[in-house]
Amino acid sequence: MNSLKIPITVNENKNEKTPSNQLVFGTKFTDHMFIADYTEGQGWHDHRIVPYQPITLDPSASILHYGQTVFEGMKAYLSEDGIVRLFRPEENMKRMNNSCDRLSMPQIDEEFALDALKQLIELDKEWVPAEPGTSLYIRPFMIATEAHLGVSASKTYSFIIIMSPVGSYYKEGIHPVKILVENEYVRAVAGGTGTAKTAGNYASSLKAQEVADREGYSQVLWLDGIERKYIEEVGSMNVFFKIDGEVVTPALNGSILDGITRKSIISLLKHWGVPVTERKVSMEEIREAYLNGKLDEAFGTGTAAVISPIGELRWKGELFYVNNGETGELSQKLYDALTGIQKGTVEDPFGWVVEVK
Amino acid sequence: MNSLKIPITVNENKNEKTPSNQLVFGTKFTDHMFIADYTEGQGWHDHRIVPYQPITLDPSASILHYGQTVFEGMKAYLSEDGIVRLFRPEENMKRMNNSCDRLSMPQIDEEFALDALKQLIELDKEWVPAEPGTSLYIRPFMIATEAHLGVSASKTYSFIIIMSPVGSYYKEGIHPVKILVENEYVRAVAGGTGTAKTAGNYASSLKAQEVADREGYSQVLWLDGIERKYIEEVGSMNVFFKIDGEVVTPALNGSILDGITRKSIISLLKHWGVPVTERKVSMEEIREAYLNGKLDEAFGTGTAAVISPIGELRWKGELFYVNNGETGELSQKLYDALTGIQKGTVEDPFGWVVEVK
Repeated sequence: MNSLKIPITVNENKNEKTPSNQLVFGTKFTDHMFIADYTEGQGWHDHRIVPYQPITLDPSASILHYGQTVFEGMKAYLSEDGIVRLFRPEENMKRMNNSCDRLSMPQIDEEFALDALKQLIELDKEWVPAEPGTSLYIRPFMIATEAHLGVSASKTYSFIIIMSPVGSYYKEGIHPVKILVENEYVRAVAGGTGTAKTAGNYASSLKAQEVADREGYSQVLWLDGIERKYIEEVGSMNVFFKIDGEVVTPALNGSILDGITRKSIISLLKHWGVPVTERKVSMEEIREAYLNGKLDEAFGTGTAAVISPIGELRWKGELFYVNNGETGELSQKLYDALTGIQKGTVEDPFGWVVEVK
Repeated sequence: MNSLKIPITVNENKNEKTPSNQLVFGTKFTDHMFIADYTEGQGWHDHRIVPYQPITLDPSASILHYGQTVFEGMKAYLSEDGIVRLFRPEENMKRMNNSCDRLSMPQIDEEFALDALKQLIELDKEWVPAEPGTSLYIRPFMIATEAHLGVSASKTYSFIIIMSPVGSYYKEGIHPVKILVENEYVRAVAGGTGTAKTAGNYASSLKAQEVADREGYSQVLWLDGIERKYIEEVGSMNVFFKIDGEVVTPALNGSILDGITRKSIISLLKHWGVPVTERKVSMEEIREAYLNGKLDEAFGTGTAAVISPIGELRWKGELFYVNNGETGELSQKLYDALTGIQKGTVEDPFGWVVEVK
């Protein structure tokens, strides 16, 4: 679908903008959205940029019953030089296609989708906030739209991109959060959908999150669903630990998400000469490192929060205070480097940043 | 919400009915639907019966991204005496609330929901098909509607009931189907959402189904996600085996669905004095029973198909022909008894059947 021009219907009733310092994550959207429709046998068609507007679905549409949907999360940043930058957007489009494969959904043309996104950002450029810590959060997603209650892959889909100006994901910002290690609920196992960015993984996580909330914790730390020993993710982020000077993170094992922030951090650490290993990490290992005074830092990583330091972990009634509950030196350095590259204020030695227009 | 009258907006443009012998599962819907809305702090409100019509959602609605949704499947049958009957509908409403709990969604008033369903059926009574093998399939479902991209439980929901006149779920009808034992993909594990009727379980299953289709199999048989040894479900049904005169079915283990057809079959078998056991069943046990000539019958059970005999199983390249690929005596007897009770042509010693009005 690469050579097509995208018809644009301009929104004549501009949405009112929220001041940058009052932005809440994912509640306010820009003036326009991108849509393309897919029909089996015909492929993608009717690409269009239209005013941000409700979606109309038959009550029997697959997405509402059988959860055939995938999404991505990415951000655009406005720098002082007035340039809007995207961070490794081609990685998001590639991962979206991997998710689509797992969910028996059609592939998108990654290059065209990125081009459509750039056109959408260009049109809604005034929505990209400028203040430190703010960005334009971008949500490409695909939903199954066929009106049919049989359990089978839908014959029709819509691919949609919406955008939302955001402040920090967590109200704590870069401040450390308290994490509850989850022993009852499981996020995913190998053979399931854990590696895909799909609705079911998130739906499954809400109950544990609810329990954590009640006990005063921001997020849960997920353990593997088989032995309930090994660390998987934290909330909806990948997780890293600095133990005795070495950085470790759970290896991609068929049940955790191949995070773009995760892989960027591994590259940054290697670039800096900091030892970093992808391997199995057990909670018992974390406990021992803590008791021996070797658990230096812990943090979650993801597009929404970038780096989310962990200040406290609770596991089976035991409390571990990481780095005295403060943001660690490496966590801060990684946050500054990554957000600096994203904002265009720090040199990008990797070619990660893509300028819009 | 029990004492409220339900406002009805009549559909002035009746849908055209499909002849009973041309019905396809879940593609045609009746003239009306029931809707109620939920708002945090306010509870359920705006209950209404309206013409069957599209649903309008903000593109950021939770259901489209994080899969917060549950559903039920039930059937209404028209007998020769002109009475419409439901089969254990209170069990569906109860299970829906269990699913809601797992998905951090609000509870429904089960009694009121059943009353609303009866009113809806009464209004669309002429849509209940009469021919043998046909019924009115009923789909109550709840979706998260809040326009918010943060990963948290929605603050607003809609509870909807739609209805569809159906023939047999499988084009094979009560004829035996070929089943592929799935070794790569996993449906659910304990701690996940396997016991809830929620979208993610079905989304996760499509890929394996796609592979099975390509190889000429109707459904997959799911093994446990931990040891990949024990039998869980078949497609989206519970599964039973008759081995050496005894009927066995996987015990409720925290990852399989507590099927209403499943529990009805267990009751029927006990009523008949047929030995039936709920326990772990391994594929190795099935293989050995087959090789020793003791695998008498195998069948899936669910609301949509009622009884779906298994004529062939493929596991790791080995083929097991169950009962020479023919419908077993017990499978047929269970199908006749259950559909007879549902239709009102066979005595119902359990009080399972509920007359509409």
